[in-house]
Amino acid sequence: MREAYQEQLGKLAEELASMSTMVGTAMERATSALLETDLSLAEQVIDEDSQVDEARARAEEHAFGLLALQAPVAGDLRTVIATIHVAEDLERMGDLALHVAKAARRRHPNAVLPTDVQAYFAEMGRIAVRLAHSVSSVIRSQDVETARGLEEADDEMDDLHRHLFTVMMSPEWGHGVAAAVDVTLLGRFYERFADHAVAVARRVEFIVTGKMPTT
Amino acid sequence: MREAYQEQLGKLAEELASMSTMVGTAMERATSALLETDLSLAEQVIDEDSQVDEARARAEEHAFGLLALQAPVAGDLRTVIATIHVAEDLERMGDLALHVAKAARRRHPNAVLPTDVQAYFAEMGRIAVRLAHSVSSVIRSQDVETARGLEEADDEMDDLHRHLFTVMMSPEWGHGVAAAVDVTLLGRFYERFADHAVAVARRVEFIVTGKMPTT
Repeated sequence: MREAYQEQLGKLAEELASMSTMVGTAMERATSALLETDLSLAEQVIDEDSQVDEARARAEEHAFGLLALQAPVAGDLRTVIATIHVAEDLERMGDLALHVAKAARRRHPNAVLPTDVQAYFAEMGRIAVRLAHSVSSVIRSQDVETARGLEEADDEMDDLHRHLFTVMMSPEWGHGVAAAVDVTLLGRFYERFADHAVAVARRVEFIVTGKMPTT
Repeated sequence: MREAYQEQLGKLAEELASMSTMVGTAMERATSALLETDLSLAEQVIDEDSQVDEARARAEEHAFGLLALQAPVAGDLRTVIATIHVAEDLERMGDLALHVAKAARRRHPNAVLPTDVQAYFAEMGRIAVRLAHSVSSVIRSQDVETARGLEEADDEMDDLHRHLFTVMMSPEWGHGVAAAVDVTLLGRFYERFADHAVAVARRVEFIVTGKMPTT
């Protein structure tokens, strides 16, 4: 029983780890679509989002299977429920990559971003992709130190996000309101992507230590 | 066993229903704080958000208790897991009310919103509060028709949200970029609040019918 439980849980973790890689790839492509006004890349991300949704549905089914067949209690029960939350966070990260891709498509063949904020988004994109890959490896390794390390990358994301506002509010901003609206929404998508990555890392920490990190 | 399960599940539903009332009240106050630049109301919402978080933690504990003690299977298992998702959506709705309140506090004693979009936000606030109360009654009644009715209010919210963009993009927009950034973020908070309300209604429909609505 115990062995079957561990084996099924291991498989579930593997599914979640590859789901995280999927959403990292989606965000990488969405960012390229955004920065290089690449319509076909944007459409690829949009088309492939359903795969993330399916992966989430499968992971949730497997978690249900574990609960129904193994009826885990105490720590094991919390672990399985945590995987359900993780699947939800990862699906949401996929949705945010999708939103970025849709913004790129909506303005095509025009660039969404004025040139003076492109470097910010290139960096936000890099951090987002790095976070998704860290999440993937944290899910596999269950390494608490690495999980905690994600908070730093999230702080960098928040700093970039704040800087964006400074750029838009400055008297030198010459791109008007429409561009500011796009930049505001896009900035939020990246920031939320990072928040969900951190939420997953915290769940992993909770699974390992039995305590939910408070900060 | 069955009776104890039903009784505990009923208590859990009651907790979630009152949590929905809480976040409705929070959004109502946050909207008033925003429209009337009422600092003390904004601070009340900010202070009381921890109560929503606590209610969510309690609901999740009770769901864990149900899973551990009753080891429900099949439909019952899905119902209990759905309550965990509902609690998460409701907490997120509370966070969005908090974001609105924080925006009101940040700009105090100035108004966040230019007068020509205030009516939009008054209406978005009314819809958000109505949605939260509908969610509360849907959780209690498990009435599928009422649950489906929430989609309509969500469509109204989406229409208002789209109109906001039209207003900001029009050549008559004379409030500059800073106000547009605030309006963009605030508009998104209301729209997401409605999305989460609909997500809860869909969960209830799933609990009753055994099928997740697809649209």
